[in-house]
Amino acid sequence: MNTDTFLKDILAFREERDWKQFHNPKDLAISLVLEAGEVLEHMQWKNGEELEKKLVADKEKVGEELADVLYWTVLLAHDLGINLEEAVAKKMRQNAAKYPPHLAKGSSAKYTELQGK
Amino acid sequence: MNTDTFLKDILAFREERDWKQFHNPKDLAISLVLEAGEVLEHMQWKNGEELEKKLVADKEKVGEELADVLYWTVLLAHDLGINLEEAVAKKMRQNAAKYPPHLAKGSSAKYTELQGK
Amino acid sequence: MNTDTFLKDILAFREERDWKQFHNPKDLAISLVLEAGEVLEHMQWKNGEELEKKLVADKEKVGEELADVLYWTVLLAHDLGINLEEAVAKKMRQNAAKYPPHLAKGSSAKYTELQGK
Amino acid sequence: MNTDTFLKDILAFREERDWKQFHNPKDLAISLVLEAGEVLEHMQWKNGEELEKKLVADKEKVGEELADVLYWTVLLAHDLGINLEEAVAKKMRQNAAKYPPHLAKGSSAKYTELQGK
Repeated sequence: MNTDTFLKDILAFREERDWKQFHNPKDLAISLVLEAGEVLEHMQWKNGEELEKKLVADKEKVGEELADVLYWTVLLAHDLGINLEEAVAKKMRQNAAKYPPHLAKGSSAKYTELQGK
Repeated sequence: MNTDTFLKDILAFREERDWKQFHNPKDLAISLVLEAGEVLEHMQWKNGEELEKKLVADKEKVGEELADVLYWTVLLAHDLGINLEEAVAKKMRQNAAKYPPHLAKGSSAKYTELQGK
Repeated sequence: MNTDTFLKDILAFREERDWKQFHNPKDLAISLVLEAGEVLEHMQWKNGEELEKKLVADKEKVGEELADVLYWTVLLAHDLGINLEEAVAKKMRQNAAKYPPHLAKGSSAKYTELQGK
Repeated sequence: MNTDTFLKDILAFREERDWKQFHNPKDLAISLVLEAGEVLEHMQWKNGEELEKKLVADKEKVGEELADVLYWTVLLAHDLGINLEEAVAKKMRQNAAKYPPHLAKGSSAKYTELQGK
């Protein structure tokens, strides 16, 4: 999907309701954390096969929570003048440097452990 | 930006490191919550003008945290078979129904309060 | 342990540093969430036996994160004029009503499912 | 309040419902994070005087969320064999070392900034 189109819709929605006044970065970031928590809530108390079944049953709802996370991510980036595409490209370069395949393959260790830092 | 291109990069990165085995949905959702927390951490203890200055200074780093949030959002959606584009479209329709402009304009009330539910 | 003694120490610590001015409820609650996240971070990516071993190894550090959580809980309650002892007693009565043993025994269902609400 | 008495009540409650089987540390820590999020949710979108009023009105409910946070903190400490009283004492010693009054007084800087680390 295209996050720029999504952002345009979000900004039009906000404009129409005159909500910019409430959208300080701190409250946007709080929304992001709380919506991420709602995603996690669907995974709570179940494990293994039982969790897999629940996630199939909850698929539609988890999708809505992930859409909420995406909503605040895209809007917060916009309000702070952050270019998400560049940020993501930079992150991928960093990850590649932190976790070179020959060290990281099949390991769940953090890069600080992997590289003996 | 295009999240499908991003997803392809993420999946190639994971494949190369054989990390699919660690990526159960619960741990992915935990990562999402923790990265959202790192975004919020940049807003902690500062307010008003002081916060604004800090966010200008931290722009690059906040961008990296938002890239992390996007990373787990896109990957978790993929692993659960969720179509983010559809989820986002549905969410926008729901928001429009919950917050009609004539009721919501200029108000920070929740839809349950707005509509007297 | 006695949370009132702990609270006295926290208040003396704050007073000595003149930090009351930074302690608005929103930033205290943010701290609470972030410290709870640090507890969870110790459980990330590991499961089963591997997680058990890690938690034995990390016991000291997890204890420090839990102490941080307790710190903000006790301080936030104080600043909002909340009596934690009463709040806890009320919560236990609510839990007992929501989860009567004859319905809840051996079940991980939420009370809304349990009681067909 | 005495957290040992509270812990006894929690353990009796769990025993009666045979819920120990669901209480792995990861799900307990997830509960802790989600309940901390519910505390923060009461502070969302409001600021200044408006937030103060809301917190007076929501006092009872915020108390219940803080009781939930305390619940999982005390139970998780117990299940991991952590002595909260010792952890708290250690934390207070660390805080005193990180934030000596002559450096920290009236400053919201992190100890790493304060001490030029």
